[in-house]
Amino acid sequence: MDRSLAEGALFTDQYQLTMAQLYWKDGLHERPARFEHFFRRYPDYGRHQAGYCIAAGHAWFGEWARTVRFGPAELEALRQHRTDDGHRVFDEGFLGWLDEVGGFDALSIEAVPEGRVVHANVPMTIVEGPLALAQIIETPLLNQLNFQTLIATKASRVRQAARGGSVLEFGMRRAPDQGANAASRAALVGGADFSSAVGLSHMVGFPPKGTHAHALVQVHMALGAGEIGAFRSYADAYPDDVLLLVDTIDTLQVGMPNAITVFEEVRAAGHEPVGIRLDSGDLAHLSVVASSMLDEAGFPDASIVLSSGLDELAIWQIRNQVRDEAPSYGLDPDTVTRRLVYGVGTKMSTSDGDPNLDGVYKLVAIQSEEAGDWRPAIKVSDTPAKVVNPGRKQVARVYGERGKAVADVMAHVDEDVAAPMHVHHHATPGVARTITRVSEVEHLLEPFTAAVQATDPDGQREAIEAARIRRDADIARLDPGVLRLVNPHVYHVSLTDRIFEMKQRLVAEARANR
Amino acid sequence: MDRSLAEGALFTDQYQLTMAQLYWKDGLHERPARFEHFFRRYPDYGRHQAGYCIAAGHAWFGEWARTVRFGPAELEALRQHRTDDGHRVFDEGFLGWLDEVGGFDALSIEAVPEGRVVHANVPMTIVEGPLALAQIIETPLLNQLNFQTLIATKASRVRQAARGGSVLEFGMRRAPDQGANAASRAALVGGADFSSAVGLSHMVGFPPKGTHAHALVQVHMALGAGEIGAFRSYADAYPDDVLLLVDTIDTLQVGMPNAITVFEEVRAAGHEPVGIRLDSGDLAHLSVVASSMLDEAGFPDASIVLSSGLDELAIWQIRNQVRDEAPSYGLDPDTVTRRLVYGVGTKMSTSDGDPNLDGVYKLVAIQSEEAGDWRPAIKVSDTPAKVVNPGRKQVARVYGERGKAVADVMAHVDEDVAAPMHVHHHATPGVARTITRVSEVEHLLEPFTAAVQATDPDGQREAIEAARIRRDADIARLDPGVLRLVNPHVYHVSLTDRIFEMKQRLVAEARANR
Repeated sequence: MDRSLAEGALFTDQYQLTMAQLYWKDGLHERPARFEHFFRRYPDYGRHQAGYCIAAGHAWFGEWARTVRFGPAELEALRQHRTDDGHRVFDEGFLGWLDEVGGFDALSIEAVPEGRVVHANVPMTIVEGPLALAQIIETPLLNQLNFQTLIATKASRVRQAARGGSVLEFGMRRAPDQGANAASRAALVGGADFSSAVGLSHMVGFPPKGTHAHALVQVHMALGAGEIGAFRSYADAYPDDVLLLVDTIDTLQVGMPNAITVFEEVRAAGHEPVGIRLDSGDLAHLSVVASSMLDEAGFPDASIVLSSGLDELAIWQIRNQVRDEAPSYGLDPDTVTRRLVYGVGTKMSTSDGDPNLDGVYKLVAIQSEEAGDWRPAIKVSDTPAKVVNPGRKQVARVYGERGKAVADVMAHVDEDVAAPMHVHHHATPGVARTITRVSEVEHLLEPFTAAVQATDPDGQREAIEAARIRRDADIARLDPGVLRLVNPHVYHVSLTDRIFEMKQRLVAEARANR
Repeated sequence: MDRSLAEGALFTDQYQLTMAQLYWKDGLHERPARFEHFFRRYPDYGRHQAGYCIAAGHAWFGEWARTVRFGPAELEALRQHRTDDGHRVFDEGFLGWLDEVGGFDALSIEAVPEGRVVHANVPMTIVEGPLALAQIIETPLLNQLNFQTLIATKASRVRQAARGGSVLEFGMRRAPDQGANAASRAALVGGADFSSAVGLSHMVGFPPKGTHAHALVQVHMALGAGEIGAFRSYADAYPDDVLLLVDTIDTLQVGMPNAITVFEEVRAAGHEPVGIRLDSGDLAHLSVVASSMLDEAGFPDASIVLSSGLDELAIWQIRNQVRDEAPSYGLDPDTVTRRLVYGVGTKMSTSDGDPNLDGVYKLVAIQSEEAGDWRPAIKVSDTPAKVVNPGRKQVARVYGERGKAVADVMAHVDEDVAAPMHVHHHATPGVARTITRVSEVEHLLEPFTAAVQATDPDGQREAIEAARIRRDADIARLDPGVLRLVNPHVYHVSLTDRIFEMKQRLVAEARANR
């Protein structure tokens, strides 16, 4: 089935196109405009909450924006669109303009690079260029960057909870249709070491990982060879990758003894088994007991892969329980947790608890005429947090004396951002302070061009590896309170005097001109 | 960017391929096997819960299964996959077999058709055929059917809450990457009348719908023409589709008076305005007041489109509040609610509250040898609900004397299902009853072939329209208690004596043969 019409330049909302045509009719379609993409609140998973997000999706969105075209199929679909009373929705002149511009090349995009920590209410993407194109790209930009950022954030939290333990992404079966691939990629950016998704893993240059499922054991049971027959078959085929799922019948009574028997056979044949997988029951308790059994049988290096409904909170609890329970089995808790590997699926790939990032895309400035001066744009609201911060802005991250990030500051692009700086709460008037003792002021927005290069496996892998380096560097510079998995400290997001005063003036004008 | 490697035949988990190769090495790869797909629990959104699901995704999954191929790119990716110590993961002989079978054509698939009501623990899809292929298709089947069923279910609940009011799907901006298209399609199957997604809507043969956004008003405000300038521009371009977003500055003080002014101009020019959109504030209260203003201004037929965080519970509450509040404005509540249209986005497209359906895919039978007898397969567990119901089964829906569905019954394919029937709880031994007074016994599983036909816009539209007819018929035959949006009654799911006894025997054997 050809989904190209749905996935190309028409992967947008209808009103973006009707507005674009309106701008064209009014002669505003090529007027330079500036939009900002930001999210309003961090994911809240119910029992736990994020205090930061990890930006992701840029490489794929950039490639999408660079390559999609208003081609013949797209224009024909729009040409055929009729109102209920039979009129064409889109004028041939407007379609001619779309045909002429072809795609989104005329837009200039800046972004906080993939892998970096991003905060609520701070622009993470900026689009500047012809109004009509900047309008049409709203939906695909939000769709692609919101989702990968959401999943990368969840994956980063899972990685935090695993504290150095390997994280494998296993979520395709319950992930959202072909959004599964974006979820796997975002998980690789945010915190997973590898994914089980075959095609996606090869596409982005990481080898896919996997073991075996209950079905293998069931087949051998139904045919009379039993669980141990399945284990032997696996070990025979993959002697250097023997990782056995031990819970099909009974983990401790059946699965573990069978696995150990086969491990001994594998070793006798000159290979070293990799480990076991636990997929049900009290994973923490079973980890401790299985660890003890593996040690006693002479396999102290065998890994224990855990799966079944894991998320950051479950992993955190498992690690705590192992710490409490291991000593009663005569084990060192750190030795047990060091052998744990986390297979995380559904809850990471769907951001269970909060499956959408509320990213928005707001007009902040438009030129008064072609090549004219920039006019800041406002949207007022009775809810202070929903009043747009106007104007062409830059974003600076300010680091304190200990090298930790202390605030993200929105300033006008023409402003020099340096300490001491007097700043205002991003939404609540009257909350202001002066930031002093600054070790570094870093500009977060970068041109998007880097993202839209190389999408061969090498380029894809390099993009992910570069994002991971940025992620680790940013996480290391976050305050531990902001990193907290539950009820995190709220990071400071501020406006300079100049932006604050512009906002106050525009709000007053909008309300006066009712 | 070419995502075809990630979206084709390798859109699966790595362990499916390593198991398939294992079956090939053991000579079991072409052994006929039977797997069942079912979900274990209905979505639970936290404050509300589903008592039924709507099956969806078949047409797209069927087309995927019919067309993907183990082609040169797929085989080369598998050929290049090496273990850490440099060995090839996949044997050339196994790749040769994949090349030879080419795709999934050898599998026979049955399913409960799209649009039909489906229940927890009842097989909704059955795959029978060569073991290795049936194994590999597990992940893409689960991925595609789980997600669309999840979203169609949410959309059906939204439709229930709207009680005849139009439902528009607006969710792309926060939907999961290109899973957004599957979400829009599933919403059209489950309960949305139209979608805002442009390409997808054209692809499936429904015209996309949309109005305008705040940006249009902001542009005109920034350039000095104000909100009314934006409204006039819109009305001038789309005189027969004037639907104005009235909350950019202040809904009742500014937006409504401006909209009514423009409505009068539109009417004076010989056109009839369509309505307004409310996107913030107390939507129920604003609906009543706006309704009153529109009536007084002589626009009693103008629609009121509501958007902003809607889901089934929000819509239900809005309708209740309108019922309570309309009389105090001298309005008939039904007149107000009849003009409401619901624009539902994020929460429907991501199944907010429960973003994944726990669909599983379990081996239930395998032939003892090529063309041999079928052996039922079991998976035991300490959790009764996780013990697989074994054997080659059919599914019958039993209707009572009032014509309402009273139970879904799993029976052996060779059994005759007729009343009176003695049945057992699907998971809990010891809970049994006899069903009498049956008006109809209906077989739910149908061959999948219908789904894999025509995927041109006509075929796509026909598939959705047919699914909607099945949906409405099934919803009409559900007990109101099962339809309840909050804390629904649990529908009966049962096993015949024959399946129950087979299950007890296999569990005992598995436990005895430890």
